[in-house]
Amino acid sequence: MASPDPARLSLNTATIREQWGLAQAIDGCARHGIRGIAPWRDQLAAMGVKEAVRAINAHGLTVTGLCRGGFFTAKDWQDDNRRAIEEAHALGAQCLVLGVGGLPAGSKDLEGARNEVNDGIAAILPEARQAGVPLAIEPLHPMQAAERACINTLEQALDLCDALGDGIGVAVDVYHVWWDPKLAQQIARAGKKRLLAYHICNWLVPTRDLLNDRGMMGDGVIDLPAIRGLVEGAGYKGFHEVEIFSRLDWWRRDPDEVLSICKDRHARMT
Amino acid sequence: MASPDPARLSLNTATIREQWGLAQAIDGCARHGIRGIAPWRDQLAAMGVKEAVRAINAHGLTVTGLCRGGFFTAKDWQDDNRRAIEEAHALGAQCLVLGVGGLPAGSKDLEGARNEVNDGIAAILPEARQAGVPLAIEPLHPMQAAERACINTLEQALDLCDALGDGIGVAVDVYHVWWDPKLAQQIARAGKKRLLAYHICNWLVPTRDLLNDRGMMGDGVIDLPAIRGLVEGAGYKGFHEVEIFSRLDWWRRDPDEVLSICKDRHARMT
Repeated sequence: MASPDPARLSLNTATIREQWGLAQAIDGCARHGIRGIAPWRDQLAAMGVKEAVRAINAHGLTVTGLCRGGFFTAKDWQDDNRRAIEEAHALGAQCLVLGVGGLPAGSKDLEGARNEVNDGIAAILPEARQAGVPLAIEPLHPMQAAERACINTLEQALDLCDALGDGIGVAVDVYHVWWDPKLAQQIARAGKKRLLAYHICNWLVPTRDLLNDRGMMGDGVIDLPAIRGLVEGAGYKGFHEVEIFSRLDWWRRDPDEVLSICKDRHARMT
Repeated sequence: MASPDPARLSLNTATIREQWGLAQAIDGCARHGIRGIAPWRDQLAAMGVKEAVRAINAHGLTVTGLCRGGFFTAKDWQDDNRRAIEEAHALGAQCLVLGVGGLPAGSKDLEGARNEVNDGIAAILPEARQAGVPLAIEPLHPMQAAERACINTLEQALDLCDALGDGIGVAVDVYHVWWDPKLAQQIARAGKKRLLAYHICNWLVPTRDLLNDRGMMGDGVIDLPAIRGLVEGAGYKGFHEVEIFSRLDWWRRDPDEVLSICKDRHARMT
């Protein structure tokens, strides 16, 4: 594998969310020469959409995704997703990432939740198409099936995409899919049309927390160059978005140090 | 779903391993009217195989599985699996459960590990057949892919079984497979021939530890009657083996209380 193009690096702001708000993250990306950014909607609301658009455009950053729509098993899903699509449109985001939601409180009906999710995505897709906002289903790791997302494999997500048609694809996050015996097959199946985002980080051994103990590229057991080879082999030419939830390590560091290390590791270890 | 037959309850000794050795667990099963037991090999070694066989036979218990063979990515896998087969034979175990092993230390080559596992199982299968010991591949949850088992779905395990022929099947543990979108399809595919063991417990929300925070039947989000319906619908008529790793709860309780609750929950919540 040739080294990745440094211009393809994007920062998902979750990576430094405990240290910086969105305005600081935008400035940080500009200062470090990181050309892509993927904001979260709570930070976007805090900064204001107009001001965020102004700052992002002033620095010429690409919005590689807006996090997130989805959570179709929550009560206000329809209004919330409508707003998310509007915000993604305003930002010119390359996609709206969908964390689809898990089991409703008290429920054990995983199949029912999956049906609700399928129906919810089908319901918002026309608006997303009209707004020119591609929807990216992000299959989450099976350990998050109950609490966050009942779409848990690329195969499951792509079956749904095939049923729904255009304007929808997947966000491939190595953390969620690296273990999958069908990873290569399903990335090839997705192809350029369905591969809307590529997220990187690493799986630590041991992993101390199911949600917030992700590793930096190079620190864990995921073969990142191999997976990049798969997505690029399938035609993906987009950004490589670093998304690290790390209560015990990276969220405690100087965010400028974090960004420097992201750049270095991206260049050498992915 | 009709209630499960109480005579189908089996105790995997991991459930009370911090409180009791194997001799105590055998006595405990007899005292509580639990008719099946699945011992671990470290406890079997501590008690002595002969003495364990004597005590198990004296109480007329069924050995629903021996835990475990496998770990094909470790150095001494061949001798260790040979001994495991001999022990399973001596116990008259219904199967030898294989935890196949994860990534070798320092490796990121998951596909290589999977190939080693496939080769290792193929190598020990003739001896297992000769000893009349069915091998049960237990796919482990994807969150354990790096450290414990690189076989992570029923589909993957059954593909391997199909390649290997007779004398091999799967152990279906609800904890590892409940999230799988292809669960119903793959249990049906397995059928009576490949379904060698059925393990029960529950998935807690939240889960505080990746390894040792399993829940008691009834306490989590897994729809146990539905999954029992699937395995019985596929022709499985064997035991329901309770296997709970629980450093924070069940390992701290009076083991007689644990066994009473297992019996009650099995009858009412599975």
